[in-house]
Amino acid sequence: MNDKPKGITAPPNLEELSNRLGKVRNLMLQENLDYYVSFDPINIYYLTNFANNVHERPFLLIIEREGIPKMVVPLLEKSHVESRSIGELEFHSYYEFPAPQGENWYDIYQKLIEKEKKVGIEAAMPSGIAEKTPGSKVITDIIDEVRIVKTDYEIGRSVHACKIINRGHKELLKICRPGVPEFALYQKVTGFMTSKIVTDIPSANFIVCKTVGAVWPPSFSHDPHIIPKLFAEMEEGGPHVSIVYAQVDGYGVEIERTFFLEHVPEKAKKPFEAMFQARELAYNLLKPGTNMGEIDSKVRKFITEKGYGDYIIHRTGHGLGITGHEAPYLAEGYDRLLEPNMLISVEPGIYIPGLGGFRHSDSVLITDDGYVKLTKAPEELNDLIIS
Amino acid sequence: MNDKPKGITAPPNLEELSNRLGKVRNLMLQENLDYYVSFDPINIYYLTNFANNVHERPFLLIIEREGIPKMVVPLLEKSHVESRSIGELEFHSYYEFPAPQGENWYDIYQKLIEKEKKVGIEAAMPSGIAEKTPGSKVITDIIDEVRIVKTDYEIGRSVHACKIINRGHKELLKICRPGVPEFALYQKVTGFMTSKIVTDIPSANFIVCKTVGAVWPPSFSHDPHIIPKLFAEMEEGGPHVSIVYAQVDGYGVEIERTFFLEHVPEKAKKPFEAMFQARELAYNLLKPGTNMGEIDSKVRKFITEKGYGDYIIHRTGHGLGITGHEAPYLAEGYDRLLEPNMLISVEPGIYIPGLGGFRHSDSVLITDDGYVKLTKAPEELNDLIIS
Repeated sequence: MNDKPKGITAPPNLEELSNRLGKVRNLMLQENLDYYVSFDPINIYYLTNFANNVHERPFLLIIEREGIPKMVVPLLEKSHVESRSIGELEFHSYYEFPAPQGENWYDIYQKLIEKEKKVGIEAAMPSGIAEKTPGSKVITDIIDEVRIVKTDYEIGRSVHACKIINRGHKELLKICRPGVPEFALYQKVTGFMTSKIVTDIPSANFIVCKTVGAVWPPSFSHDPHIIPKLFAEMEEGGPHVSIVYAQVDGYGVEIERTFFLEHVPEKAKKPFEAMFQARELAYNLLKPGTNMGEIDSKVRKFITEKGYGDYIIHRTGHGLGITGHEAPYLAEGYDRLLEPNMLISVEPGIYIPGLGGFRHSDSVLITDDGYVKLTKAPEELNDLIIS
Repeated sequence: MNDKPKGITAPPNLEELSNRLGKVRNLMLQENLDYYVSFDPINIYYLTNFANNVHERPFLLIIEREGIPKMVVPLLEKSHVESRSIGELEFHSYYEFPAPQGENWYDIYQKLIEKEKKVGIEAAMPSGIAEKTPGSKVITDIIDEVRIVKTDYEIGRSVHACKIINRGHKELLKICRPGVPEFALYQKVTGFMTSKIVTDIPSANFIVCKTVGAVWPPSFSHDPHIIPKLFAEMEEGGPHVSIVYAQVDGYGVEIERTFFLEHVPEKAKKPFEAMFQARELAYNLLKPGTNMGEIDSKVRKFITEKGYGDYIIHRTGHGLGITGHEAPYLAEGYDRLLEPNMLISVEPGIYIPGLGGFRHSDSVLITDDGYVKLTKAPEELNDLIIS
């Protein structure tokens, strides 16, 4: 274990963003790309600090080997981009979507890329935009690649975001008792975290803020991605599984716990123990140089040997950063080594229909010689019986 | 003007969804497609009633000319899809994302499409998924096309959604006065609408619920898509521009007004009048058979003749439905005729830096012989001075 880095709430400075762009350009050079075009609003946010919910009007960031990046934007949005972006951008605005002939987004866009050049595009770029992209195209996620290992600034932001969800999770556990409806809990926990975000970061951009606080009671905790009904009630016993997630002015983190109300049903003890030990196994493997796919294989093997192989339905973990779900993955078949400054969830789970789900999740930073958990809540069974 | 249809809050029945699928298949036949593949979570929701925030794990709906549609889903999500979808689906689940060789989503997906067949895909389909789609591919947005003209059921849902935002906007105007911060207003208006959604539709799916209530004060109302800072304050005078938007258990609608606090600055009177008249012009043109691009051209011409041509930054309107922004468009260059049962916003705007923005928006249904406004709030200048 290592010390937790200090939290940061300030917006990124120009140096931070130039550094990110520099890394993207290094990869462009390695892949011999003349241009890289980003459409994904998440990647555009990463490089420019401009965030948006993109509807039908495309925003396109065109990066060349050097010079000021170009951005194709709807006329309507130009001043919005200018007010939020950090670092120089050369704007090329288009009339509207749709637009009269010759003034559509693609008319403007196509003039900015030379036809005989090599152009990298994201796997996430919509086919309709890729189709209108000139040049010799290659799908390559180089911004996503750069995002896999975090900068010190990003880590500081995530540390702060974890403070918010740690407090949110503490509030959540306080109000859980049989009969409490999902909706009441959701309002209380998200309201609490939202107030804290606003207090800590009065200049927060709400487009990249989100809070979730929910509990899956035992009647459906075996189905971890179902959306609970608003008036689903917490029940006596368990396993209940909590989810507290926040994107705090751009940085997404999560904490989740398996807990019980008043007592632990006898049948729940063994799967809880198996989940707990699988998690310990995963943590023991968390250090730079370990193959991430192998961690998941070993965890799955362990759970299977405990007799719960049929109840594994997801990987051991996923990356966190400016989203709550991203590369890298602790997932079988993901052949990549852990590196310092990766930020991942660790959350092996067991899901037994008729009994419930068993999963703890934490947001964890890989350090030079191991890891440090950025989230904090009770972990042991005895500390997770609420009465 | 016509009568407003009755609001509906019930979930869609099987007949409604079969009807939608039937229309998609008619277009497949017309375009000679053997398969149509939908990735867009919005289109999948439209056809199946299953909504999700898709992260990295793809969901793919494969429609053939006949038979039960197939859905490629992550193993983790299968029971979630089953619990929310309406109508039969044949599930093909994959191990995880990423996954060991041979068990990835594309391994499962590629087995379901015959290589020599013609496959329609959406313009929104990510390039990385299109690349792994077998067959002879053609980009054609046929589900989006079907969504342009609403069914009676969809209209009923939108009518109900408009009742929520009408009430929300009324609350908004009640609490506006100089010095009120954005955040306080946002919390009050969204809280009010959320409570109403929950009361009206206790079984609402929160993945497809959203509420927004905000005001652009005169110091930045000229920039309609900027995201207001949390503690931006309302000011004496105006123009302030309100935005009340809600997606009510899947159906998105909007209402917006230009209003003033305590008095109307002299300089604001003429542009308000020009906006008001441009809007009347647009309404006078709203009936089946009118070219939608031409409506926008005429409105732009009118505003230009009034001397505000340099201050037009967006089209006259856009479609509404299961999203808040979609085809069809009242936009120059959009060469299509209005039809009964289209649902659109009507919102010509004038944006003058240093003075502010002028825009009313309503959600409007096209009827057999004209239109009916589904939203309701004061429209005349005299009724929009709050003191």
